[in-house]
Amino acid sequence: MNLNIGVIKGDGIGPEIVTEAMKVLDKVADVYGHTCNYTQLLMGGASIDVHGVPLTSETVAQAKASDAVLMGSIGGDAKTSPWYQLEPSKRPEAGLLKIRKELNLFANLRPAILYDELKGACPLKEEITEGGFDLMIMRELTGGLYFGERKTIEEDGVITAHDSLTYNENEIRRIAKRGFDIAMKRRKKVTSVDKANVLDSSRLWRKVVEEVAKDYPEVTLEHMLVDNCAMQLVRDPKQFDVVLTENMFGDILSDEASMVTGSIGMLASASLNETKFGLYEPSGGSAPDIAGKGIANPIATILSAAMMLRFSFDLDKEADAIENAVEKVLKEGYRTIDIMSEGKTQVGTEKMGDLIAGYI
Amino acid sequence: MNLNIGVIKGDGIGPEIVTEAMKVLDKVADVYGHTCNYTQLLMGGASIDVHGVPLTSETVAQAKASDAVLMGSIGGDAKTSPWYQLEPSKRPEAGLLKIRKELNLFANLRPAILYDELKGACPLKEEITEGGFDLMIMRELTGGLYFGERKTIEEDGVITAHDSLTYNENEIRRIAKRGFDIAMKRRKKVTSVDKANVLDSSRLWRKVVEEVAKDYPEVTLEHMLVDNCAMQLVRDPKQFDVVLTENMFGDILSDEASMVTGSIGMLASASLNETKFGLYEPSGGSAPDIAGKGIANPIATILSAAMMLRFSFDLDKEADAIENAVEKVLKEGYRTIDIMSEGKTQVGTEKMGDLIAGYI
Ligand SMILES: CC(C)[C@H](C(=O)O)[C@@H](O)C(=O)O
Ligand SMILES: CC(C)[C@H](C(=O)O)[C@@H](O)C(=O)O
Repeated sequence: MNLNIGVIKGDGIGPEIVTEAMKVLDKVADVYGHTCNYTQLLMGGASIDVHGVPLTSETVAQAKASDAVLMGSIGGDAKTSPWYQLEPSKRPEAGLLKIRKELNLFANLRPAILYDELKGACPLKEEITEGGFDLMIMRELTGGLYFGERKTIEEDGVITAHDSLTYNENEIRRIAKRGFDIAMKRRKKVTSVDKANVLDSSRLWRKVVEEVAKDYPEVTLEHMLVDNCAMQLVRDPKQFDVVLTENMFGDILSDEASMVTGSIGMLASASLNETKFGLYEPSGGSAPDIAGKGIANPIATILSAAMMLRFSFDLDKEADAIENAVEKVLKEGYRTIDIMSEGKTQVGTEKMGDLIAGYI
Repeated sequence: MNLNIGVIKGDGIGPEIVTEAMKVLDKVADVYGHTCNYTQLLMGGASIDVHGVPLTSETVAQAKASDAVLMGSIGGDAKTSPWYQLEPSKRPEAGLLKIRKELNLFANLRPAILYDELKGACPLKEEITEGGFDLMIMRELTGGLYFGERKTIEEDGVITAHDSLTYNENEIRRIAKRGFDIAMKRRKKVTSVDKANVLDSSRLWRKVVEEVAKDYPEVTLEHMLVDNCAMQLVRDPKQFDVVLTENMFGDILSDEASMVTGSIGMLASASLNETKFGLYEPSGGSAPDIAGKGIANPIATILSAAMMLRFSFDLDKEADAIENAVEKVLKEGYRTIDIMSEGKTQVGTEKMGDLIAGYI
């Protein structure tokens, strides 16, 4: 199979970790008889440096022409990076919001998995996490408050800022369907999160999710208020399978869930549209403080590449091979510094990539 | 001193826990030579049962005529309670939003404290919480998304729901000042939480907070994005002193923080306006499943009464007396069932109230 992959190396540790993911993909291609054609695309700070804007229409067109995009992290250190002197619409993250919208990437999947080998890093007590947990946050990614109308006006000498949160039933329906589809391949439980005791958008959310649920009689649906969900993720993460929610709640809850695992350097993500196309990136940030040192953990990006094989190319066997290779390397005790613990063998970014590729 | 206290017993366990707080207040009045005059006010489900609405203008007027209001919890079980068949504006929580607005209670203080005696219940590993933590979420309570315009419309057969998020600089300034004032009496650190990389309201928030900070040169100010804050509360809650944030973020983060302590039955809250007036209530919910069983933990409400003495009546000594009494009772090993652990003595709601009153 020919895999046409757009590659956005991104900022900070981005280039280093993406390089390792490509190494692993190349090994997969080798072993399973595929060909990876990579097209390098510029986005974020790297694009600002060259073009003055975080995302050009050329990059959008190239991304659209690919089967899938693999991405490192976008952004820099807000305290020191010159990008953050620019007006907000010119900063690196603006590219992230824009590409989501341009490519219609409405479904953001963020797995939060407690790896048995890494429970030591989990901030929660062992009695809470015994047996591990594996939940999937399904976040709506192109609607709601982050894509609302904004304005800041001055009236009678008083400055007022406005943001707006809008969802229509179609936007809710398509993400809900995706959530239930994924749940069918997992433990068949959906927790839909909203603030339906206050917000109109949440009441519509709940109504549409209930309609969609009728087509999935095997899936158990429960509704949870967002404030309660923020508590339950800490109290008992094992209770969750798929957590289905809107953009802003998903932003907050997915980051909380990833921290609850204790190993953010291990967590992949996928952003999908209505076709097979998807953008795949690690859950963590660009970590400018350790950029260029060769110590960043490439596993989240490597596992994102596995998600890409699974969701955009239907190459389940190949995706499994990557996931198994990661598990093997962990079992053998290899660790990058962020997940290091006593008695294990510390390795750098490149070596970690080599080890995982070696097990494909 | 004459303390004119409005009392909203509320729903579920509300009446039981408020009764114990009044018992403790009466003891304080006795020992320190004050007089408590209580006026019972109806709100929430209890008001719906009598008046058909969760908050009448009579209750509002009576609350305004009091020096302070002590409240149990509002609401019932959304699955079984007949209140939840009503349209949203008639449900118990509607009373909560309305009273906040009517009394202009813009500053919501939610302490999240890890009690040394109760660390066993904390979901976080001991290495993270060593030495304990004591943070204060300062949540804006009468603006933002929860008080925005809402509408749900159908156009061309598609239903769309809208909520709006608005803040003006004055609303931000007054809560920011409160946050810095509180920080001055604590460890002099303010973490202001927003989503300034996306939202206009957050950018205004950040700008105004920075202006206010200039009047408090002794206080260290840091800005944190809300998604990151949701992570940091789990990773390292000790880093926080005062967390200053808008309404919705504060809703989510304060509940997360309270769960991070592991002892939600211990956490008080205060909602203040520009005068000395305040409404004081436990952070936890109405727990309808255990209502009437005499097992609910009254400590959060008792500590809310202590906050009332401190903030509305400037009776610091009396407030200290309550807080010390609570600590003593905990040290002696008395526990309600929610905070029970091996080797301790389990007591019911009333007995817990007696014990604490006994130490005043
Ligand atoms: C950078 C920011 C705009 C973005 C978001 O909030 O969507 C990020 O936090 C994320 O979660 O991918
Ligand atoms: C009941 C609800 C409207 C309320 C809120 O979100 O403000 C509650 O969750 C709280 O935090 O006091």
